[in-house]
Amino acid sequence: MKPYRHKIQYYETDGMGVTHHSNYIRWFEEARVDFLEQAGFGYDRMEALGVYSPVLGVRAAYKKMTRFPETVTVAAALVRFTGVRFTLAYTVKNEAGEVCCTGETDHCFLDASGRPLRLKDRFPEIYHMMQKFLQSGE
Amino acid sequence: MKPYRHKIQYYETDGMGVTHHSNYIRWFEEARVDFLEQAGFGYDRMEALGVYSPVLGVRAAYKKMTRFPETVTVAAALVRFTGVRFTLAYTVKNEAGEVCCTGETDHCFLDASGRPLRLKDRFPEIYHMMQKFLQSGE
Amino acid sequence: MKPYRHKIQYYETDGMGVTHHSNYIRWFEEARVDFLEQAGFGYDRMEALGVYSPVLGVRAAYKKMTRFPETVTVAAALVRFTGVRFTLAYTVKNEAGEVCCTGETDHCFLDASGRPLRLKDRFPEIYHMMQKFLQSGE
Amino acid sequence: MKPYRHKIQYYETDGMGVTHHSNYIRWFEEARVDFLEQAGFGYDRMEALGVYSPVLGVRAAYKKMTRFPETVTVAAALVRFTGVRFTLAYTVKNEAGEVCCTGETDHCFLDASGRPLRLKDRFPEIYHMMQKFLQSGE
Repeated sequence: MKPYRHKIQYYETDGMGVTHHSNYIRWFEEARVDFLEQAGFGYDRMEALGVYSPVLGVRAAYKKMTRFPETVTVAAALVRFTGVRFTLAYTVKNEAGEVCCTGETDHCFLDASGRPLRLKDRFPEIYHMMQKFLQSGE
Repeated sequence: MKPYRHKIQYYETDGMGVTHHSNYIRWFEEARVDFLEQAGFGYDRMEALGVYSPVLGVRAAYKKMTRFPETVTVAAALVRFTGVRFTLAYTVKNEAGEVCCTGETDHCFLDASGRPLRLKDRFPEIYHMMQKFLQSGE
Repeated sequence: MKPYRHKIQYYETDGMGVTHHSNYIRWFEEARVDFLEQAGFGYDRMEALGVYSPVLGVRAAYKKMTRFPETVTVAAALVRFTGVRFTLAYTVKNEAGEVCCTGETDHCFLDASGRPLRLKDRFPEIYHMMQKFLQSGE
Repeated sequence: MKPYRHKIQYYETDGMGVTHHSNYIRWFEEARVDFLEQAGFGYDRMEALGVYSPVLGVRAAYKKMTRFPETVTVAAALVRFTGVRFTLAYTVKNEAGEVCCTGETDHCFLDASGRPLRLKDRFPEIYHMMQKFLQSGE
């Protein structure tokens, strides 16, 4: 997987002249969408299949400030997958390659009516892709 | 109508240490929601009636910067109403009563299936309320 | 301390018709600002003293969705304080009193030049207030 | 000038399942930053010169809704320039080439101390570039 690239926008800065911390949570989402698209399971396809994966939890640790108009990379990797729940980890780096922020988001799979969805039974193709990502460290 | 009050949040500031201009557009929405609630036509009731009023246009003129943690007031008034379209005007003032921003938003009425809705025929009660607001300058 | 009240805005919703998860991180900041103001250490006073407390980490667990135009309360409490670092915990409840989200943010104290600041030596008044909050569970 | 490309993010959608109207104002800023970078007057260089150009006004007309995960283009062009003030116009198109939104932003030039700046006298290079853009319709 190629790391996702995000150009920091002026509207993402705050009164300290740095990126407001809430925006990293949004960058995690941008990187997650990109990760799934690279994996061939973009939002359109997931929606067509009736598979949703809401955010159950989010964690971020801020290491180094970032500033407009830098471009950061956000690498995403699957680090936990139980068949029902999964966790993605994110590493945000600046152009010098320094780690500026690390984080994780927790998700489950729901069907269109909001019920938990056992991937292995209903979408074995997605289940096996997730297994593969977990083993490869992607 | 009582002007809407908004406390400026830190995440609304930008790298210049002032409120980012895009947030005033969001405050207009906050004031519009409040205006309709004060008029007895809050979002819940409109949705129950199947009446939607998307934003067709927005204009803002920035006069004076605002800063965290000021509280601003946003007065909203109906300034045009044709039965099919309407325009609300907004005045943002700081605590000293100085005008910091003025603006307008244009809207139409749609039914639940997205078709233009003639208020006079379908919801005469709302039509007459709009007429009254227009005449009273509220 | 009185819990902070936040009216959910339409612009905070997402395509699922619920509050986008990133906004809770912003509500934590709103509640934090309010907490410090109630404690007599609002942003203006801290800035005048040259004391800054950047966000070092954030964690949120989402329990129940919230929707426009609900009003939520966000209770904040000091749960860790080492003299150099501190952690605030947040509980977001809907109008029915149900817990919708819990979270924490980690902070340190810096002086105006960005150096770590030992509160006990430089601002004993703030140090003792923090100690008191920690003991009282506020 | 190449039109700026923006991938619509999930956090930019609202409860109607479309892009919230306030985000177009932010896309105008993204396109403006890109326009200036393409012109060789990116934010870093302007800041080094001590030239600031705050937003004095913004106008947007919404023609057609856009949705996650579409990519839109935002073309920017200089349409007015008096030496002291200037106006940029924006056209947002979807992937089918349909115009979804048009808009304008008004700006002035200020020096680092916030005083109006006569470009012709102080930065003739920028003045002539602006003149050229105006004549070429870029």
